[in-house]
Amino acid sequence: METKLISVQKEVSLPAFPKGFHLITNLVIKELPELKHVNVGTLHVYIKHTSASLSINEDADPSVRSDFEKFFQKLVPEREPYYTHTSEGPDDMPAHLKASLLGSSVTIPVNDGRLLMGTWQGIYLGEHRNHGGNRKIILTLLGSSS
Amino acid sequence: METKLISVQKEVSLPAFPKGFHLITNLVIKELPELKHVNVGTLHVYIKHTSASLSINEDADPSVRSDFEKFFQKLVPEREPYYTHTSEGPDDMPAHLKASLLGSSVTIPVNDGRLLMGTWQGIYLGEHRNHGGNRKIILTLLGSSS
Amino acid sequence: METKLISVQKEVSLPAFPKGFHLITNLVIKELPELKHVNVGTLHVYIKHTSASLSINEDADPSVRSDFEKFFQKLVPEREPYYTHTSEGPDDMPAHLKASLLGSSVTIPVNDGRLLMGTWQGIYLGEHRNHGGNRKIILTLLGSSS
Repeated sequence: METKLISVQKEVSLPAFPKGFHLITNLVIKELPELKHVNVGTLHVYIKHTSASLSINEDADPSVRSDFEKFFQKLVPEREPYYTHTSEGPDDMPAHLKASLLGSSVTIPVNDGRLLMGTWQGIYLGEHRNHGGNRKIILTLLGSSS
Repeated sequence: METKLISVQKEVSLPAFPKGFHLITNLVIKELPELKHVNVGTLHVYIKHTSASLSINEDADPSVRSDFEKFFQKLVPEREPYYTHTSEGPDDMPAHLKASLLGSSVTIPVNDGRLLMGTWQGIYLGEHRNHGGNRKIILTLLGSSS
Repeated sequence: METKLISVQKEVSLPAFPKGFHLITNLVIKELPELKHVNVGTLHVYIKHTSASLSINEDADPSVRSDFEKFFQKLVPEREPYYTHTSEGPDDMPAHLKASLLGSSVTIPVNDGRLLMGTWQGIYLGEHRNHGGNRKIILTLLGSSS
């Protein structure tokens, strides 16, 4: 049986979110009607910014996302006396650090036309600036066509 | 010369591990006899849970893995007074945080039928719950067939 | 229209860098003349070491990279009394921990022959040893050919 390559890529502009962690799974899926044509593959989600992050975590209880914000705010404090990159405001250098601690992309397996995530998993956008505005993400679907 | 796509995907249930960091490289490789058919590609390993993690680190000396457990236990403490997601026990919220700090997947290059890791590299399962039970991972191999 | 698979893989030896964070975007791109043949795909960059890391962050202002070094030096201290993996020097165990916090690989979308990064994004090598020497990375390009 021959296996044909499917490759799809889209740039998506997200709505502006307040500082904190936000579920974007449904926003991603609705941009990808082509998912249904993939037999086996991966979806790569990449954020084109250095002060916001992408990760995978619990999608059911919003208290997880608010505890994330409190934890990371404490782990990466603002106004550390040793910061030298301070010209863009006190939230900027911590935002860069959080972006690298959490990551700039996630890759999710795709099977038989759908994302193969765990029951309680979702895609988190970490908005680490006070006024981050619209963030652009790139979706890349690679795999075999069904 | 024509290059043909190879795409293989498997769900694997891992044995239950105690809280801490564990090498799963051999468990992964023994599930993938198809590796030998890949000329150039990647292996994506994804965990379908939000309180366990996957990462790459030193596979030779077990003291690295026990120091990992001590470090992350200190970095992400239990029973922080500001946690609100506490209904599933004191190890639950720290487990979610560790999962996003360390990551939910690793991607490893594949060349000529084998994983192209460094000499001392292995795949770490981070089990962050006291009683996490069996964890499910998804292996996705994409590349050109040899 | 038929979509053909392109798969390219290279091992690259980086020059020795001092401890800290360093931009390697241009070193990566100059090794990949094949990029121009990719229509849609991903570039996976993987480091074959457990005491150095790869991440994506701000490429314009070097003060971000020096603040990164100071932050991670404080977040993951040397000579913690509970470390047991100490035979390779005080910078070794922190280097392993930083490698897993930051990650061993990055994946970047590719479109129409170029890396689809944000305007201010670059690839950071995190050199976490005092004398890490030459580091080997593996570049894997997968996608559809143009």
